[in-house]
Amino acid sequence: MAKVQITETVLRDGHQSLIATRMRTEDMLPICDKLDKAGFWSLEVWGGATFDACIRFLKEDPWERLRQLREVLPNTPLQMLLRGQNLLGYRHYSDDVVKAFVKKAANNGIDVFRIFDALNDIRNIRVAVESVKEAGKHAQGAISYTTSPVHGIPQFVALAKEMESMGCDSIAIKDMAGLLTPMTSAELFSELSGAVKVPLQLHTHATAGLSEMCHLKAIEHGASIIDTAISAFAGGTSHAPTESMVAALWGTEYDTGLDLQHLQEIGFYFHEVRKKYHQFESEYTGVDTRVQVNQVPGGMISNLSNQLKEQGALNRMSEVLEEIPRVREDLGYPPLVTPTSQIVGTQAVLNVLTGTRYKNITNEVKYYLQGRYGKSPAPVNSVVRQQAIGNEDAIERRPADLLKPEMHRLQEEIGALAKTDEDVLTYAMFPDVGRDFLEQRAAGELKPEPLEPLPSEENHQVSA
Amino acid sequence: MAKVQITETVLRDGHQSLIATRMRTEDMLPICDKLDKAGFWSLEVWGGATFDACIRFLKEDPWERLRQLREVLPNTPLQMLLRGQNLLGYRHYSDDVVKAFVKKAANNGIDVFRIFDALNDIRNIRVAVESVKEAGKHAQGAISYTTSPVHGIPQFVALAKEMESMGCDSIAIKDMAGLLTPMTSAELFSELSGAVKVPLQLHTHATAGLSEMCHLKAIEHGASIIDTAISAFAGGTSHAPTESMVAALWGTEYDTGLDLQHLQEIGFYFHEVRKKYHQFESEYTGVDTRVQVNQVPGGMISNLSNQLKEQGALNRMSEVLEEIPRVREDLGYPPLVTPTSQIVGTQAVLNVLTGTRYKNITNEVKYYLQGRYGKSPAPVNSVVRQQAIGNEDAIERRPADLLKPEMHRLQEEIGALAKTDEDVLTYAMFPDVGRDFLEQRAAGELKPEPLEPLPSEENHQVSA
Ligand SMILES: [Co+2]
Ligand SMILES: [Co+2]
Repeated sequence: MAKVQITETVLRDGHQSLIATRMRTEDMLPICDKLDKAGFWSLEVWGGATFDACIRFLKEDPWERLRQLREVLPNTPLQMLLRGQNLLGYRHYSDDVVKAFVKKAANNGIDVFRIFDALNDIRNIRVAVESVKEAGKHAQGAISYTTSPVHGIPQFVALAKEMESMGCDSIAIKDMAGLLTPMTSAELFSELSGAVKVPLQLHTHATAGLSEMCHLKAIEHGASIIDTAISAFAGGTSHAPTESMVAALWGTEYDTGLDLQHLQEIGFYFHEVRKKYHQFESEYTGVDTRVQVNQVPGGMISNLSNQLKEQGALNRMSEVLEEIPRVREDLGYPPLVTPTSQIVGTQAVLNVLTGTRYKNITNEVKYYLQGRYGKSPAPVNSVVRQQAIGNEDAIERRPADLLKPEMHRLQEEIGALAKTDEDVLTYAMFPDVGRDFLEQRAAGELKPEPLEPLPSEENHQVSA
Repeated sequence: MAKVQITETVLRDGHQSLIATRMRTEDMLPICDKLDKAGFWSLEVWGGATFDACIRFLKEDPWERLRQLREVLPNTPLQMLLRGQNLLGYRHYSDDVVKAFVKKAANNGIDVFRIFDALNDIRNIRVAVESVKEAGKHAQGAISYTTSPVHGIPQFVALAKEMESMGCDSIAIKDMAGLLTPMTSAELFSELSGAVKVPLQLHTHATAGLSEMCHLKAIEHGASIIDTAISAFAGGTSHAPTESMVAALWGTEYDTGLDLQHLQEIGFYFHEVRKKYHQFESEYTGVDTRVQVNQVPGGMISNLSNQLKEQGALNRMSEVLEEIPRVREDLGYPPLVTPTSQIVGTQAVLNVLTGTRYKNITNEVKYYLQGRYGKSPAPVNSVVRQQAIGNEDAIERRPADLLKPEMHRLQEEIGALAKTDEDVLTYAMFPDVGRDFLEQRAAGELKPEPLEPLPSEENHQVSA
């Protein structure tokens, strides 16, 4: 009962966090036999960024990757991350697309669907959860963790209860920014485990160097599954190292039962693999506790600094960092995760650079204020709303209720380029990049982006 | 009372663990004002390896470094690591040398002396502890942590009690290899805090990725001081990141009271400094849990692999790793720390390469079996002892009892090259390298080893 289980993330969030999601299927397959024998609760293998990177950069069919992994991982549940009604894309899809996508993902090999909504608007995950249950698969409800005056343990507990009654088979806390501290983890899981009966899982990031401690305290207070990454793809903006957590729990009542030497062999394999992708490494891969001070996720800061650099305004960064919490308050404290992190960040940059707050308002903020992303955690600032959308009423209903079925339209749009329903869904998720991919495939012109040679090989070439 | 305090190790163990102890005083001084204002319990700044690296590679006078640091760190206790009767060297010194060394270290600026013995033979730390008390400074007894059939919580508790009655002002657990697990830390500190009244400190290494969790559990069970390294010199074979531990404890009953933003500024400074020393970086700086499987410290494995490589026998490594626990058992389970790690490791290599165990026996093993390093934790293998030293009786007394005063002899040997008692002690600690240093100084020929340019600068030169 107290035994702890592991979701290994190296094939999704691990390489997404550390090498810009660039790991190729050819580097996954050789180690799958060992991965399959390790005894993980699940292997996270799929999500929005892996799908996108496959078609955009690697010129791989993400569905084909999934089928290949399924083939060589017969004994391990495969897991994906799904953005509720957004699926893997950046807009709300109609219910028929959601149902089709979940069905195809299940058919091609996904066993565990982790489903979240950026605003924690539970209505946005319902159709996905129901579709997963219909496919006979494991539906995990994930709560986007954040801190704000309207986010606390009672709110998270209420969400967990709603997810449980909705039929979720387990519940995850998704701390994408690494905001959790050990003592908060203890309190949160203590309350959650008292309130729901389904298994509780923790997904947190190592950014601030707190993830191992958060896992330990969560486990002591009722978490039974944790997300880790094999050491070669752990740490920094990724997760706690799998081997370290297994060693930490070994011989205790929380023993994972996994074999440390077996895991070390997997770690050595990925250590070599990582070298191949050195061009995608961040300059800084160490511990960064700034998120604990300003509550802004590290990934968001690097995006902002790119935006500011393009406009020659990198010196305004500290003003933008001060503006972010104000915009977030105006918008009713959305958690900062895709897509709300981009929505808040871009508006904060505009507010600073134009010199007048909300002089320019992005379309995304307008949509947000219209309720088109769902219900904000707290009421939005009515002055800002008035300025953005006038006296227009905000949508009270679930955003997808306004959408007509669209699978048929999508099929027609992409036409003969789609050989399968999976191809239609690829186009649906990423209209531009997806179409490009299908066109290149039709023309026999799929060319993966080149990898730079290893630094040692380069030196060799210079001296040769 | 429950408040936790921090020993910052970046100026000693941090750079010793990650860049071969090569940080220069010039890179320490500019940040000392910020370090001094941080509010650390102590700053570890001095020890055997820093002393050695100063005179061997950096051509700096380690005493002068200490005085400079003292000058710019008026408010922070400065700490050093002392190998009991071995001081900073590799042999037992006579008591007059121990007394002189401690006195001079105190005079030049050391406030906290962490004193340990490789065998945990308490007789080998007594004179050093007494000398520290006489100088009016803080004497910390450090227990070399290890695992074996004769090392368990009762043995460590007994040692702690002896150290307390000896007059130690605090007691540290020195887990040089990163062997501790979180649950063992909890039990150990729970028992220690019930048995002694002085403050308890934990020194553990991040090698296996367990250090943060060990600190947390130790703190929950009675540790009030922990050793950390500022993030830029944390992780890998170094320590848990200072900023992460401060963030983890913030707002709890264990709050360190340190300012996270202030620490982040120190971290950014050292992040830049570290780049300068890139030539000393290990190829592998990530988490390595192998020590949790084979109980052999990472540093020892790299030394062994160098030894084996020189003899063209790198393929025998796994045999050597299997032989180490057997040799350790034969020698009565010494903890693997300087100098016992070298003694055990070299003999294990000989046993494997000659094909017959103890066909050749090193002088160090003979000395060890004669009792010249002190009392072994358990009785040694009598067959091996017979083979090594025949029927000769082992020393029962404290090894240094056999040594006559030697300061006078040392003074005469080094003669006019020594301008001060400190110079004599430099020579005493490192007879060859110390003499070379003093000769080079006399000749005005102190030349620090060159630093390789940054990779980016190199590229620049190539393309220019
Ligand atoms: Co994540
Ligand atoms: Co150490």
